[in-house]
Amino acid sequence: MSDTSGPIPTRGRFPLLDRVSHPVDLRNLSIDQLKQVADELRSETVETVSTTGGHLGASLGVVELTVAIHAVFDTPDDRLIWDVGHQAYPHKIITGRRDRIRTLRQPGGLSGFTRRSESEYDPFGAAHSSTSISAGLGMAVAHHLRAEEDPSYRERNVIAVIGDGSISAGMAYEAMNNAAVAGEGAERLIVILNDNEMSIAPPVGSMSNYLSRLMSSRQFMGLRDLAGKFVKKLPNRLERTAKKAEEYARGMITGGTLFEELGFYYVGPVDGHDMTQLVPILRNLRDTDQGPILLHVITEKGHGYKPAEAAGDKYHAVAKFNVVTGEQKKAPPGPPSWTNIFARELIDRASTDNRIAAITAAMPSGTGLDKFATKFPDRFFDVGIAEQHAVTFAAGMATEGLRPFCAIYSTFLQRAYDQVMHDVVLQKLPVRFAIDRAGLVGADGATHAGSFDIAYLGCLPGMTIMAPSDEIELLNMTATACEFDEGPIALRYPRGNTYGLELPAKGEIIQIGKGRIVREMGQQSGREKGGIAILSLGPRLQEVLKAADQLAAHGLPPTVADARFAKPLDTQLVEQLARDHAVLITIEEGSVGGFGSFVAQHLSKTGLLDNVRLRTMTLPDMFIDHDSQFEQYNVAHLNAPYIVKTALNALGVSASEQIA
Amino acid sequence: MSDTSGPIPTRGRFPLLDRVSHPVDLRNLSIDQLKQVADELRSETVETVSTTGGHLGASLGVVELTVAIHAVFDTPDDRLIWDVGHQAYPHKIITGRRDRIRTLRQPGGLSGFTRRSESEYDPFGAAHSSTSISAGLGMAVAHHLRAEEDPSYRERNVIAVIGDGSISAGMAYEAMNNAAVAGEGAERLIVILNDNEMSIAPPVGSMSNYLSRLMSSRQFMGLRDLAGKFVKKLPNRLERTAKKAEEYARGMITGGTLFEELGFYYVGPVDGHDMTQLVPILRNLRDTDQGPILLHVITEKGHGYKPAEAAGDKYHAVAKFNVVTGEQKKAPPGPPSWTNIFARELIDRASTDNRIAAITAAMPSGTGLDKFATKFPDRFFDVGIAEQHAVTFAAGMATEGLRPFCAIYSTFLQRAYDQVMHDVVLQKLPVRFAIDRAGLVGADGATHAGSFDIAYLGCLPGMTIMAPSDEIELLNMTATACEFDEGPIALRYPRGNTYGLELPAKGEIIQIGKGRIVREMGQQSGREKGGIAILSLGPRLQEVLKAADQLAAHGLPPTVADARFAKPLDTQLVEQLARDHAVLITIEEGSVGGFGSFVAQHLSKTGLLDNVRLRTMTLPDMFIDHDSQFEQYNVAHLNAPYIVKTALNALGVSASEQIA
Repeated sequence: MSDTSGPIPTRGRFPLLDRVSHPVDLRNLSIDQLKQVADELRSETVETVSTTGGHLGASLGVVELTVAIHAVFDTPDDRLIWDVGHQAYPHKIITGRRDRIRTLRQPGGLSGFTRRSESEYDPFGAAHSSTSISAGLGMAVAHHLRAEEDPSYRERNVIAVIGDGSISAGMAYEAMNNAAVAGEGAERLIVILNDNEMSIAPPVGSMSNYLSRLMSSRQFMGLRDLAGKFVKKLPNRLERTAKKAEEYARGMITGGTLFEELGFYYVGPVDGHDMTQLVPILRNLRDTDQGPILLHVITEKGHGYKPAEAAGDKYHAVAKFNVVTGEQKKAPPGPPSWTNIFARELIDRASTDNRIAAITAAMPSGTGLDKFATKFPDRFFDVGIAEQHAVTFAAGMATEGLRPFCAIYSTFLQRAYDQVMHDVVLQKLPVRFAIDRAGLVGADGATHAGSFDIAYLGCLPGMTIMAPSDEIELLNMTATACEFDEGPIALRYPRGNTYGLELPAKGEIIQIGKGRIVREMGQQSGREKGGIAILSLGPRLQEVLKAADQLAAHGLPPTVADARFAKPLDTQLVEQLARDHAVLITIEEGSVGGFGSFVAQHLSKTGLLDNVRLRTMTLPDMFIDHDSQFEQYNVAHLNAPYIVKTALNALGVSASEQIA
Repeated sequence: MSDTSGPIPTRGRFPLLDRVSHPVDLRNLSIDQLKQVADELRSETVETVSTTGGHLGASLGVVELTVAIHAVFDTPDDRLIWDVGHQAYPHKIITGRRDRIRTLRQPGGLSGFTRRSESEYDPFGAAHSSTSISAGLGMAVAHHLRAEEDPSYRERNVIAVIGDGSISAGMAYEAMNNAAVAGEGAERLIVILNDNEMSIAPPVGSMSNYLSRLMSSRQFMGLRDLAGKFVKKLPNRLERTAKKAEEYARGMITGGTLFEELGFYYVGPVDGHDMTQLVPILRNLRDTDQGPILLHVITEKGHGYKPAEAAGDKYHAVAKFNVVTGEQKKAPPGPPSWTNIFARELIDRASTDNRIAAITAAMPSGTGLDKFATKFPDRFFDVGIAEQHAVTFAAGMATEGLRPFCAIYSTFLQRAYDQVMHDVVLQKLPVRFAIDRAGLVGADGATHAGSFDIAYLGCLPGMTIMAPSDEIELLNMTATACEFDEGPIALRYPRGNTYGLELPAKGEIIQIGKGRIVREMGQQSGREKGGIAILSLGPRLQEVLKAADQLAAHGLPPTVADARFAKPLDTQLVEQLARDHAVLITIEEGSVGGFGSFVAQHLSKTGLLDNVRLRTMTLPDMFIDHDSQFEQYNVAHLNAPYIVKTALNALGVSASEQIA
């Protein structure tokens, strides 16, 4: 990726930052100098994201924390793990990647998340939330075991920085529950809870500063066991005073008591933008072996950049923007997103069917359910980052006759796979899964790709899986899912905009397990029993139709069918296509083990496979890096030219004939 | 299943229990009578399991709780959910299933877990742990929504009974974290924490009884908000006195404070075998609307049956036994289990390779790692019921050069699917997955079947999946996994005994992605390019060899190959088999989307599919009930006769020819 680096346009404008190419350059600076580095780093981050777009708010919230950690700890030997990793832009800038930072999220450029292959300063990659404590604990324990064997091997500090949203996931809890008892080495784990809950004023002030400093000072820690009870009460009381009411209201864990119950040494809360607090506290924590430690830091998302501070979403994720005004570059007006089409039909149906309920795991706007929430607040449930609970909660609702929709991205539904199997599918409960971001997803890259859901859901007996080929189909399938009470049903649809088709007033119920012929084969090609059939699942249909036009231009107009259902298979349609054509191509926006495999299995069972040349086009067996969705599908060989080529090859048309 | 019911052999010996065919029969009984019912119910449970085998210890621990709940609450209208469900034998006996209780876990008989299809008293089925709070919360919220619409619809109490082991899973925490804020109706949720941690003496006694009664009394609850702080401190202090030290040591959450922080009203601890405490407390909880409530009940596993109380495992899971002596029927001496063979090789390798570490999620003996733990306590990690954490914890270890083995049953690895994808596979980390209980598992039934792992892991790029066909292969594959540092690797092996083969001193490293020819086709059949090839993955090989003998008797000796790897595919072997044979059959102990699909995809891509009759034998698209493993594979049509039939059908041998 070095070819994508270039001169740094801000070189010379940020004199102290210019001297920091790696964290080691921070370690002799004074606190005042570190403050200046942080200020310059914030500006550099703003300028960068103004040209690339990306997750700005979270990164701005951790600028001081980033500088302080790298100044105090011996990274990369000490391990620093950023949970989720979308707040790591400042981290990337001061860990040798400033020259490439303007390639962020661009094709061939830096990832928008941390990534082991990108830098030794990224010891654990991320993108999905709540993994950092588990990974850090594993590292800390491993360091100890290795150091035991080899005295030259130093025990390292491991720092996991995790947000207040992420720490509420079950996985983070499992890790915390295990930390104090995992074994030797765990005492070197420092979890930094980056609490940027915006609705609550950070409990800063002299008393708070004093207590935090006091609690983390080396001497005080030495007295820990003696003063146990006292210590345990203090942070708790402090918390209670400031937050008591809000605490339960938002269902979040904030009290030191809870962490103490789990065996952590709790320190905080600390103002995460105050370098004069952060640096000495981190030094104390570095030098103690009284861990595992939880340092509670209060930060403000979007901090230090006025337009971000003023915005409701604190510039969580932004397009390119004007640095001075903060004005974001508007996307050209286009057709509505798949997400919005889904939400439209769901809301429409819910207005006359009060059994419909909607559940999201911390993605109300990403799933389009924010609009549902406004209209039907009683029937909307945001459970936080808790996909496992979301699914089984929906299963419970379904047992009582509600019609719950779980709207979860394909990649995040992986978090709830067992719940889908054990609580929903095995019990034949009519939970509806609205699987957004299915297929390749563009700039978020491989970590967020929705590649596997057809395979991992399709193997479950009794599952129904639909994939709309366009937005009208999405309306229809949403409507169909609403009315289907016989068992679990999923609809999967992609990220991005639809095609701008004229929409009917409302979706129509379609028949379960029935596909449709989209284009009848024209003249027979004369080859064997008759030419090509392409059976498409989902939005690949548009590329299939392009390919069909090109094949027609070759005198080989194919039959094109839209499977609509990955499961149950339209066996009649599949059999008919196999019987009537020499070649049958399946195509889907998913991995091996999915739709194509179900078609192959059925044709194998019936023996029809023996008399048709089956070609199953799927995502390839590789992770595909961030890029535009179109380019990603080129890499995947799933765009029209590859469909044409597959068809011609299957027919035995040689390469030279193809060119002719 | 009514045909499996019969006369009740203990009829007449348990006079009060004889009067209780359903819970309604309990509701006019005095507390003394309820005690007698409980005593009789315990005896009936012991006698039953003595003839069937099963999970006895957990059921004996909840006899009084079962009777008390059904006596106080209006089941089945009030919903009672047993987490895991293996403690529900007494529940089954008093909810209309006493006449069938001796069919427990037998073919065609009652399930060893709760099951919606079995009884209206089982509103939510289970078997995997930690699902009950999510499901119960969904029900409670749904009741409220439905009651809002329809005033005739009563809001119901929902009771979730969950063990101290199960509540430590992330999923249970996600549910608790959401309970207080989920919405209206949630106040009708009562979580009963069944704390049977045996190492800790239950904090019973006059003061404790008094406080528990006091805290749950109706009047006191009315004052709750006023007396908030006082209430919050009380259970906490009580806990601390009794348990302070042990609490952190075992990493368990027990303090009321923690539950209070999560927004629950905490009541307890209560002696779960004392009907005089349980009944009035449950009545109070039933009649309050101050929930969600957490009632902390202390029980003793195996309680009331001397041999169980005296046993180290409290008769957690037992074979048939003599009621008087408690002596369990010993299984006839047989070859070692697959589990033990795996553990043997792992321990052998670990004795010379200190990078090997082993991780289990609360299954030290089930995975054979208990022996590893004894030898290498520093390198053994039992993280509790926390599969998500287990996998990412191992990923962290792998980044630091350890060689971690995650030993998790196939069905439970579903809980960590996203962690396998996002933390291990995407980062190409060499975590070893020892997937026990792969394929069909016998008496535990469909909830525990390991049917899907080949499909859900096989779609992940860069994954390596091995399946041994016998115990020598398992030794070899365990050895191979130890030495493989290039990326993630899994070995899947079944429940049960191996074949009694003579074992070499240690396993040998096998070549990654290479299968082996087991039997060369004999004489050509004369049909087309040459007869049948059967490519087997895993232990189906034994049935394949039987089938091969039968086919040879038909004059159709097939080529038999052992694929060894589901991924990467031995493409050379697959291509050779396809080229040289008219028919290629794949067989595996897994669902569609797995090995057979990978073979089909490869043959499709290369065009070789066009000239071979491929038949992919997999588990069928249905859940298979508990039975012997052999019978389950008969239901699945994966035993020798079905292989023969598939081969003959593919060759075009007609049914009449087949008989001849």
